[in-house]
Amino acid sequence: MKPLPPGSTIGILGGGQLGRMLASAAAELGYRTHILAPDAESVAAQTASSFTRADYHSRIVLDEMAARCDVVTYEFENIAIEPVTYLGTKVPVHPAPQALAIAQDRASEKAFVDTIGGRTAPWRRIETLEELEAALAEIGAPAILKTLRLGYDGKGQVRIADAGEAAAAWEAIGQRPAILEGFVSFTHEFSIMLARGADGSMVSYPPPWNEHKDGILARSSLPAPAEIANQWGVAAALTGRIADQLGYVGVLTCEFFATADGPVFNEMAPRVHNSGHWTIEGAVASQFENHIRAICGLPLGDTALTAPAVEMINLIGEDADDWAAILAEPGAHLHLYGKGEARPGRKMGHVTRLKRD
Amino acid sequence: MKPLPPGSTIGILGGGQLGRMLASAAAELGYRTHILAPDAESVAAQTASSFTRADYHSRIVLDEMAARCDVVTYEFENIAIEPVTYLGTKVPVHPAPQALAIAQDRASEKAFVDTIGGRTAPWRRIETLEELEAALAEIGAPAILKTLRLGYDGKGQVRIADAGEAAAAWEAIGQRPAILEGFVSFTHEFSIMLARGADGSMVSYPPPWNEHKDGILARSSLPAPAEIANQWGVAAALTGRIADQLGYVGVLTCEFFATADGPVFNEMAPRVHNSGHWTIEGAVASQFENHIRAICGLPLGDTALTAPAVEMINLIGEDADDWAAILAEPGAHLHLYGKGEARPGRKMGHVTRLKRD
Repeated sequence: MKPLPPGSTIGILGGGQLGRMLASAAAELGYRTHILAPDAESVAAQTASSFTRADYHSRIVLDEMAARCDVVTYEFENIAIEPVTYLGTKVPVHPAPQALAIAQDRASEKAFVDTIGGRTAPWRRIETLEELEAALAEIGAPAILKTLRLGYDGKGQVRIADAGEAAAAWEAIGQRPAILEGFVSFTHEFSIMLARGADGSMVSYPPPWNEHKDGILARSSLPAPAEIANQWGVAAALTGRIADQLGYVGVLTCEFFATADGPVFNEMAPRVHNSGHWTIEGAVASQFENHIRAICGLPLGDTALTAPAVEMINLIGEDADDWAAILAEPGAHLHLYGKGEARPGRKMGHVTRLKRD
Repeated sequence: MKPLPPGSTIGILGGGQLGRMLASAAAELGYRTHILAPDAESVAAQTASSFTRADYHSRIVLDEMAARCDVVTYEFENIAIEPVTYLGTKVPVHPAPQALAIAQDRASEKAFVDTIGGRTAPWRRIETLEELEAALAEIGAPAILKTLRLGYDGKGQVRIADAGEAAAAWEAIGQRPAILEGFVSFTHEFSIMLARGADGSMVSYPPPWNEHKDGILARSSLPAPAEIANQWGVAAALTGRIADQLGYVGVLTCEFFATADGPVFNEMAPRVHNSGHWTIEGAVASQFENHIRAICGLPLGDTALTAPAVEMINLIGEDADDWAAILAEPGAHLHLYGKGEARPGRKMGHVTRLKRD
């Protein structure tokens, strides 16, 4: 892949904060960005060079996007495959649709990771209440029932404390195709952000310790405690195998549980990730810059930490009301995403703190 | 001044790379930006939320800008005063027009600095060839003849090696009102970037050593050598007095010569400055962030270095052709401004290198 020259245009499907930060990173390298998103107010459009408001299914819109862009990427994994595949016939699209297809289907994802030697929680694919009851008998409770598709930030998931809750859980997820996951006893959660170039070169970031609240990432911090650091190598190697197998180009994120028996793969996101937002100030090259570098055929950037310790705190809903206090804090880096209303659970921004000595 | 809440819109007059980097910094803090510039292709518009292409003199355009913006700033000091003053009657404008007026007139600038106790090179205001000859007799050669207005990056300047060159120099600058500046024997050039808030609070960056080539900044580096470090305090104090006297809000840059007798004021720019581009990675809060913080009534950000040593190299004209090599260099931060043609002397981007240990 020849490096894309400065002035080229990168198309981004999706208009959220990940697209917003990708657009800013692209601009620093001299690229233009074009956002396609259905939202009336796209926060990515605020930092991108241009914006088309449309749904993802109009061929006219997709043809126009392919014509104006030199490469196309996407900022969320719940986009329909069809427009991504269609765009791929007209313009390079990274990551390739097969990564998206696997990431969109929890059963495919787990089966794929099992195949290449990763460890996953015990899991079963579920189509009916009877299958759920049988799976519970096999795997045991507690367990988590997750819809096969379209889940994120704890949505589409229900915890089953004992077998008697099966029917209620099946109702709760709308009787949709799902997987049942056995309980994993873990000490910590962490993630591997890895960038892979079209030439197969790879770099990955030191893993953050990720702490969640109400199913949403609350805090990522580095350096990770020993329980994570000891499993970094195995987890990074698995993430690298996943990327290689998929011929992946761009930033790939895999989330892991640190357990007494080593890292257990939880899920992957074919994109930059909330648990990598600390890289903007906390790494030499951010995850956003490395995604742009990868999809544009540029050499990958340095993933080393810029400080001995870094933490990223999400500002969710009303948390963002603290913006003035955060701005008054020496050395705190405030990031707000330009969203209007601070609804509960809505990611409004984040703050990164570096411990510089 | 009450802090401007996130989601507010900052208007920027001017469409160049300074506006581009201001817009990116504003977006990180959750603000929208609106660019007004006459250029068909504004590189600032590529990162801003919205763009109006128009000249600066239409009342309709200015009224519309005032209506859509919560505060207005400008990214270059050669903008006409009249539209800035007009906007100031409708919406807060920072820095205030009086700073702009002084910065636009080399004689006013020198006289003002002389008045508040700064040291300047010997200088005389020149309206005619006879005045030039008289001034040369007084100040002596070598000396530099500079047009009163609209000079930057070495434009509108001519060096006079001896008195016999007076007439040719007068022709060379188009017989326009000018000042003659005596020769200053200096060891180094440096600059003070200072941010002042509406409440009078001030922060300033450690001074870079600025090296020029063909009248254009080539390199800024820190920490500055002892010849500069020893004069930092005096220069920063003068810059602070200038800002206070002008009731300045925003980032103010003053350029100095380091001489055996202390710092000699060269010129001021009522804006962020090329010699401060290193602050994006090299300081905790960049000059762009601090300008946005100041004009939005936010507390000012930390100006401390993030690494023991930093250098910024301008990419001028064909220098930018090296982008691929720079991207391959571990830890180099490439910034390209999204400009089309790499004309000689045109600032296409810059690269910042941090020495992290």
